[in-house]
Amino acid sequence: MDLKEIAKIIGCEFSRDSFEVNRLNTLKDAKHDEISFVASSKYVKDIQSSKAGAIIVDKSTKEYVPNGSIALVVDNPYWAMATISKYFAPPIEDNTLVEAQMGEGSVVSLKAEIAKGATIGKNCTIMAHVYIGTNAVVGDNTVLYPSVTVYRDCKIGNNCIIHANTTIGSDGFGFATNKLGEHRKIYQNGNVEIEDNVEIGSSTTIDRAAFGTTLIKHGVRIDNLVQVGHNCVIGEHSVLVAQAGISGSTTMGRNVVMGGQSATAGHLSIAPFTTMAARSGVTKSITQSGLTFAGFPLMEHKIWLKLQAKIARLIK
Amino acid sequence: MDLKEIAKIIGCEFSRDSFEVNRLNTLKDAKHDEISFVASSKYVKDIQSSKAGAIIVDKSTKEYVPNGSIALVVDNPYWAMATISKYFAPPIEDNTLVEAQMGEGSVVSLKAEIAKGATIGKNCTIMAHVYIGTNAVVGDNTVLYPSVTVYRDCKIGNNCIIHANTTIGSDGFGFATNKLGEHRKIYQNGNVEIEDNVEIGSSTTIDRAAFGTTLIKHGVRIDNLVQVGHNCVIGEHSVLVAQAGISGSTTMGRNVVMGGQSATAGHLSIAPFTTMAARSGVTKSITQSGLTFAGFPLMEHKIWLKLQAKIARLIK
Amino acid sequence: MDLKEIAKIIGCEFSRDSFEVNRLNTLKDAKHDEISFVASSKYVKDIQSSKAGAIIVDKSTKEYVPNGSIALVVDNPYWAMATISKYFAPPIEDNTLVEAQMGEGSVVSLKAEIAKGATIGKNCTIMAHVYIGTNAVVGDNTVLYPSVTVYRDCKIGNNCIIHANTTIGSDGFGFATNKLGEHRKIYQNGNVEIEDNVEIGSSTTIDRAAFGTTLIKHGVRIDNLVQVGHNCVIGEHSVLVAQAGISGSTTMGRNVVMGGQSATAGHLSIAPFTTMAARSGVTKSITQSGLTFAGFPLMEHKIWLKLQAKIARLIK
Repeated sequence: MDLKEIAKIIGCEFSRDSFEVNRLNTLKDAKHDEISFVASSKYVKDIQSSKAGAIIVDKSTKEYVPNGSIALVVDNPYWAMATISKYFAPPIEDNTLVEAQMGEGSVVSLKAEIAKGATIGKNCTIMAHVYIGTNAVVGDNTVLYPSVTVYRDCKIGNNCIIHANTTIGSDGFGFATNKLGEHRKIYQNGNVEIEDNVEIGSSTTIDRAAFGTTLIKHGVRIDNLVQVGHNCVIGEHSVLVAQAGISGSTTMGRNVVMGGQSATAGHLSIAPFTTMAARSGVTKSITQSGLTFAGFPLMEHKIWLKLQAKIARLIK
Repeated sequence: MDLKEIAKIIGCEFSRDSFEVNRLNTLKDAKHDEISFVASSKYVKDIQSSKAGAIIVDKSTKEYVPNGSIALVVDNPYWAMATISKYFAPPIEDNTLVEAQMGEGSVVSLKAEIAKGATIGKNCTIMAHVYIGTNAVVGDNTVLYPSVTVYRDCKIGNNCIIHANTTIGSDGFGFATNKLGEHRKIYQNGNVEIEDNVEIGSSTTIDRAAFGTTLIKHGVRIDNLVQVGHNCVIGEHSVLVAQAGISGSTTMGRNVVMGGQSATAGHLSIAPFTTMAARSGVTKSITQSGLTFAGFPLMEHKIWLKLQAKIARLIK
Repeated sequence: MDLKEIAKIIGCEFSRDSFEVNRLNTLKDAKHDEISFVASSKYVKDIQSSKAGAIIVDKSTKEYVPNGSIALVVDNPYWAMATISKYFAPPIEDNTLVEAQMGEGSVVSLKAEIAKGATIGKNCTIMAHVYIGTNAVVGDNTVLYPSVTVYRDCKIGNNCIIHANTTIGSDGFGFATNKLGEHRKIYQNGNVEIEDNVEIGSSTTIDRAAFGTTLIKHGVRIDNLVQVGHNCVIGEHSVLVAQAGISGSTTMGRNVVMGGQSATAGHLSIAPFTTMAARSGVTKSITQSGLTFAGFPLMEHKIWLKLQAKIARLIK
């Protein structure tokens, strides 16, 4: 898409040499042929080091745009980004691609739907009412139970089991809001990748990334009715118990345990071997490995036990 | 259905002139050709002003039935209403209707099921394993991802996106209970209406109304795994984050935000521009606009922060 | 499967007379032709009275194995059990069985999938995109809404209603973990049984038992997005409100009410006629019938109200 056209769509002046923009991306990951945006002034550092060919900014952040990058100045950069995200969204299905490829020994129900461009490995079981989207990849020996939906471009590894009615790669909950309180969708143009030996329960939802990848590393165990937000990384052998909710862009080390109905805020980092008891609510990053937490607000489990004793006395 | 027959089914004496009853409805909304019921004595005011042709009451509320309405006296009016609700339920599917109508430019998967009497607008994408029920209506430019289920009589507006495995219009959680502790289903004969420009995540459930309509107003954003109970009204541009739960008959103004895993009790009214932090539990109506709340029981967010500080001191 | 072969797979010495092992089972339920295991030393009493033909133990529990049972000694019995559970798992579908049987008057969508060996009673409605697995049984007059998935060997009674996108009988969340933090699946070789007159909402998940049966007794009402773990027993006429979560092996008496977003830990026993308010968190068994509880940690509802009053004073 031509940069000049983008400038026109988001309503900003443009008198520089244009170029073909190949993608919308984050400040950190954007390349010379890509466009990025500044959602808030706290990203100033990322602006200065960005390799993006053009950056959507407001007046207050314009000055940080490095030489070699073109500044597109608007009132609400996040809204402008949402506006153009639509133009970088691939079609939901792409029928110009080749028929899906199936590996030897795989059994695919006649009542499953496999979109063009998809690839399924060897010895898989793909049951009735499964949907596998355009360009999605499924490894070897993987079982998808009925009504599992895998959106386009997502990848599932070898030896995985995904239970009924679970959704892999639906859109992350991303939108910009204007002064009138109206919302505009940020098209979620990333994907989900699930590594090997992962088992996921039924009616669980794992959102695709806005940019890049939501990543479930090898050996993870996810129970039923769990929510994993866009751009999360779930570390190797981590365990997410039923009805847990992980907000967007939170990253976990290996062997983290999230108890039933526990939750994290977004953009956190959780140290390896952390255990969160059931109903824990995590609002800050956890840097020390191997501890056990409970409560909301979160505290070490042993302190939580003391607090409960004090509350018990308070009642009497 | 003949009123005399209804009286016989619920086991009450009947010696008045009968009439053809066309619907079961609430005291407020019932018309002369409809029957209503009194679930509890707190509805006395509604009895007196009801236009219903007949009202199911017990001995204690009988005296409030207005002239022009016939009182059907039983021991447990709620149970009697549940009993007759079944007779007013339409069939799950109605094959006597005409084939579903599709607007120009719409793409409907051969593996979707569209019931007779349904109407789909222009330029829609209806993916594999979607179900659209009898007499349901879908507007223009709307996308239904795989395994979305839309029950009969529900309406979805223009420019909506509904993600995989979400259910629109399943029965509200309504039943009467007798003295033996047994439950009897109250057939949910209302519907769900979703206005324009609404996006709903995956594995979310929006229940149809018992009577009337569960209403999702335009511009609303609903995340994954959210529960919206029967007869709720979600105001324009409101945002319901993942795993939030809204109990039946709660009404929200515009731009209400419910954080992740937050919840409301039923029959509440939430003022416009109210924000509830994650895990908030709302048990009373909120009348003042524009405030931010947290905690369970609910308190203003700034007070909740102070409480946390006090609890932190208590621990030491 | 030959016992000698099992011993070889789990890497333990074996010099006794072998026998054909027909099933993997719990210490309490295993018979002479079955094998069991000791997951922890707290099961010593069950070891001594077990009728199992062979028991997988570690050095510390070996001495309790009764005469007539063969001890298989390994370092990590739970891991060894997980290893062999795979060999006792039936195939996901079994195409050697006879075509599914349908009772008179049942209507089955052409877009539903009924596996071989399944049995459907009279006057049922089986809608589009439903999956009913191998050997599953559905009673008379039962309605399965679109995209309901019933895994193999599960049983659903008469006069039941199950709403869209609900999963019956997906695998319980069972795995063993080794010293490296890796998990190994415990194949869930039990089933789910749902008795008569049960209604279940949409996107609810009921897990199959590891051994034996997850049981939903007659007259139960389950709302949307509820999690019922493996080996639970839900008593007659109990009510589970939306987003409640019941952890594995918890048993409830009749007419228990679990409010919205409430939860129980696993392996508890809840007395009949117990009511848990919304958001309750139950961590200990409840032995006295008829009480109402709230809070997390759980307390009697009247005490919880007092506590809230004290906290309110604390804020001031």
